[in-house]
Amino acid sequence: MAVSRRHWLLGTTICLALPRLARAQTAPAAAPSFDPTVVAAPHLEPAIPRPAQQAEAARKLAALRARTGRAPNVLIFLVDDMGWGDCGAYGGGMLIGAPTPHIDALAAGGLKLFSCYSQPTCTPSRAAIITGRLPTRSGLTRPILSGERPTANPWADEKTTAAMLSEAGYQTGMSGKWHLGEGDGLNPHQVGYDEYYGILTVTSEMSQQLDQRLYPDLVLRPDRLAAVRAAAPPEITKGRKGGPLEVDRAVDSTAELSMLDQRFAEFSEGFIRRQVQAQKPFYLMHSFARLHNDNFPAPGYAGRSPAGFPHRDAIVETDDIVGRLMAVLRETGQEENTLVFLTSDNGGNEDAWPDGSYQPFRGGKGTTWEGGVRVPGIAYWPGMIKAGRQSDGLFDQCDMFNTPLSIAGIVDRISPDRYIDGVDQAGFLLADDGQSCRDIIFMYSENTLTAARWMEFKVHWRVFLNQAVRRNLDENTLVQVGIAPWVYNLHMDPKEQASQGHLRFEWGIPQVMQRVGRHNATFERFPRKDIGLRQ
Amino acid sequence: MAVSRRHWLLGTTICLALPRLARAQTAPAAAPSFDPTVVAAPHLEPAIPRPAQQAEAARKLAALRARTGRAPNVLIFLVDDMGWGDCGAYGGGMLIGAPTPHIDALAAGGLKLFSCYSQPTCTPSRAAIITGRLPTRSGLTRPILSGERPTANPWADEKTTAAMLSEAGYQTGMSGKWHLGEGDGLNPHQVGYDEYYGILTVTSEMSQQLDQRLYPDLVLRPDRLAAVRAAAPPEITKGRKGGPLEVDRAVDSTAELSMLDQRFAEFSEGFIRRQVQAQKPFYLMHSFARLHNDNFPAPGYAGRSPAGFPHRDAIVETDDIVGRLMAVLRETGQEENTLVFLTSDNGGNEDAWPDGSYQPFRGGKGTTWEGGVRVPGIAYWPGMIKAGRQSDGLFDQCDMFNTPLSIAGIVDRISPDRYIDGVDQAGFLLADDGQSCRDIIFMYSENTLTAARWMEFKVHWRVFLNQAVRRNLDENTLVQVGIAPWVYNLHMDPKEQASQGHLRFEWGIPQVMQRVGRHNATFERFPRKDIGLRQ
Repeated sequence: MAVSRRHWLLGTTICLALPRLARAQTAPAAAPSFDPTVVAAPHLEPAIPRPAQQAEAARKLAALRARTGRAPNVLIFLVDDMGWGDCGAYGGGMLIGAPTPHIDALAAGGLKLFSCYSQPTCTPSRAAIITGRLPTRSGLTRPILSGERPTANPWADEKTTAAMLSEAGYQTGMSGKWHLGEGDGLNPHQVGYDEYYGILTVTSEMSQQLDQRLYPDLVLRPDRLAAVRAAAPPEITKGRKGGPLEVDRAVDSTAELSMLDQRFAEFSEGFIRRQVQAQKPFYLMHSFARLHNDNFPAPGYAGRSPAGFPHRDAIVETDDIVGRLMAVLRETGQEENTLVFLTSDNGGNEDAWPDGSYQPFRGGKGTTWEGGVRVPGIAYWPGMIKAGRQSDGLFDQCDMFNTPLSIAGIVDRISPDRYIDGVDQAGFLLADDGQSCRDIIFMYSENTLTAARWMEFKVHWRVFLNQAVRRNLDENTLVQVGIAPWVYNLHMDPKEQASQGHLRFEWGIPQVMQRVGRHNATFERFPRKDIGLRQ
Repeated sequence: MAVSRRHWLLGTTICLALPRLARAQTAPAAAPSFDPTVVAAPHLEPAIPRPAQQAEAARKLAALRARTGRAPNVLIFLVDDMGWGDCGAYGGGMLIGAPTPHIDALAAGGLKLFSCYSQPTCTPSRAAIITGRLPTRSGLTRPILSGERPTANPWADEKTTAAMLSEAGYQTGMSGKWHLGEGDGLNPHQVGYDEYYGILTVTSEMSQQLDQRLYPDLVLRPDRLAAVRAAAPPEITKGRKGGPLEVDRAVDSTAELSMLDQRFAEFSEGFIRRQVQAQKPFYLMHSFARLHNDNFPAPGYAGRSPAGFPHRDAIVETDDIVGRLMAVLRETGQEENTLVFLTSDNGGNEDAWPDGSYQPFRGGKGTTWEGGVRVPGIAYWPGMIKAGRQSDGLFDQCDMFNTPLSIAGIVDRISPDRYIDGVDQAGFLLADDGQSCRDIIFMYSENTLTAARWMEFKVHWRVFLNQAVRRNLDENTLVQVGIAPWVYNLHMDPKEQASQGHLRFEWGIPQVMQRVGRHNATFERFPRKDIGLRQ
């Protein structure tokens, strides 16, 4: 980069920095010292350097390890299709007839993230969380449908958090919904998890085979049903590293379907207790089948929510399970030795209403409007994460690849042969006044870069348009915006209603475009994979 | 009412009650024992009888009075145009770049209401809060514009909370925005307040005379400006019961305008300190000029919010003032002897964007969509209201007429010569598991009954339609719905998107209509007043 351009940038930075200095610490932090043109390593997303908070996190981690004598655990609660407004901590809960006291307690006792971003749909988010890579890199760019087989195994050359932690002495567990491929070589216990118990597909693909009131067109047509069921039988499966995939039980009724999350909770509870007894650090992905449609209340849950509808009962059950597993952590003395992270795999889906989520934003699941990608993100770790923190610092779920590795002390083992979009956020989470180390979030629809979040601004190059009131996931059209991107100030306009584009954001667009250029250049050195999910 | 109809109703009640019994206590409570046809007194809105919680409240109040030796204080924070999503406790705060730690602390330490309803605009709400009567009764059905004079004095035969408490030995204070009439006989200190310090009009009516960037069409036209200013000079006024209205200071610049809320806070602080010193119970209406447009940051507040825009700085300043007055209560030992209630005079107004509110609901200020009338409502009283309570029990701001009278022990002094739409909610607020005593909320646009909230259902007979994305207040058209009302289940559909009308609510519509019939009958005995604000 030429010196003159550097000077131009430096000047810009100074001009912008001055008025910001007077603002509260809570402002989304783009550290004035951060130079987006400096790349620490070719395979790593540039992170904002914050050495003081990194040192504070390191001190805390060292003190903890000195006390416990072993590495800390990681427990991720991944809720399916939970919208921004489903839990009380984010403005829902009581409002929608579904109080969530256990989730709210995690938020109140830890760090509540206001700018945590997922991918717009299920499979891509799950891939991003455990590989640290945007789905356009791994090829897992859209939901894999039941019975569908990729043309190439995406996992052949991916390395999951679980795989790295397992190699480092952790016991790694996958409980619940996988949805990252079926077939030999694609099962959880074949890609890094020491233990797996759950479902390979998604709730609706099971209910379509089981509920004759909602799906008579399949359930009451034996010929159709037989073929579908043969390709993707509804069942709970399990496996252990090196072993076969086994069927634990058939899910042959809606009553059985209603029990999924209770069974996953049972497995997770047992998993935690076994590791504690074995004095082994663990990494557990507890991945709910709920709140994805279709929700059938587990025994005792019908009408348990004030709203009384299955979706809200499912929220209450989800919250209860969070409470149950947290109680296990406490009872086994592991609460202070476990990083707990709760999030959703994408934004709310209103399509399945009344079996769908509430959220206040534009769009929903399947789009890169805020409604599709802005999700709850709660980090809880008593003694390590100060209670009552709130931050709108940027957090990409990809960061949940690097961050557990960092707290386990093995972040340096990330292989340089692939690009990692996640950044290490241990300092952000653990330092008492930690700020995000992430500079920008890139948003994709399959292989298309559609939008980005930078500071409090959202920039769209392509947007999802939809004429219907509720339809978010289906019936969207992805269109290109005019010559200028659409820009929204999310502090002033969280519902993305008033684009300010070139009219009020000339100062920022060049900086965003510079980052896009850097991002695009990574694909030259690290090409995308094609696993046959493209149209 | 014929016996046969009673039996039909009774049967309906039982059928509906059975499935609800299994639900959580947090369900919106229509007590199965409540008979909406039984009227306790012709002039009083029927309240759901809850004798146990009423007794619990009475015990707490008696114990407190035995300890303090005097009646408890009441402090109402009434924020102007604060939307549902402006403060953190209701899902805003950090999300919109405006953290509100003091307001959030009130919510966390007290009772957070999820179903607190205002009138759709300013003057009507303020009238309802201090008279306990729907604006269609008092005639104060729409905002009184600066310089406008009603044809009849609405206050001639109204009795405010302040008037009744003043007669009972309280010192009553009105600090800040009045907006309930100008002219002799309409001033706060002439209708019940012992002391008044504030503005008679509204912020935007001042800024229009002061800000040449926003309003050159008035400010830069000396001829126009002189006439407007003569009719309604921007100024802070004050008065004491029995005395004249005095001008405290001219508001002759945007700098002076920016100071309004600081001056009101100064008065309120002095008022509280004086009453504590005099050992006199007080009732203080602290009525902010903010967040109504146009917001000019007070000294030190420009860019104080993370968002940095004037509206968000105003949220931060409002929150700081709440914190300041709460600190005065604590310092003077009055925190445990004061019922604090914080609310907004109507839903969010997005018209003035970026100097406007955020809220997730349909519609906004000026409509009876949830966006116009569903507002924050926080009751805080350490030792009397259990910390951490949340409820979606119905609460109408009219109830803030009866409830302070109740805790002062003079609710029986309400005159039977007028209809009171408020109900006594002392039991709801003070009992540890208190539930709302309100059965239904009627919503009006001026003199037209447009909608009602009953249980978790919203029923519309007339709706506000609007083609624009943001326009809430202006450019709405009020239209009649089809032969069936539009019905929304607000637990499942808080954004009022999917009407279920006759298709899924046949069981409830007759019950709502019965209540409407009872409501309409009250106007026969207690006619509406016309003060000349009708078109």
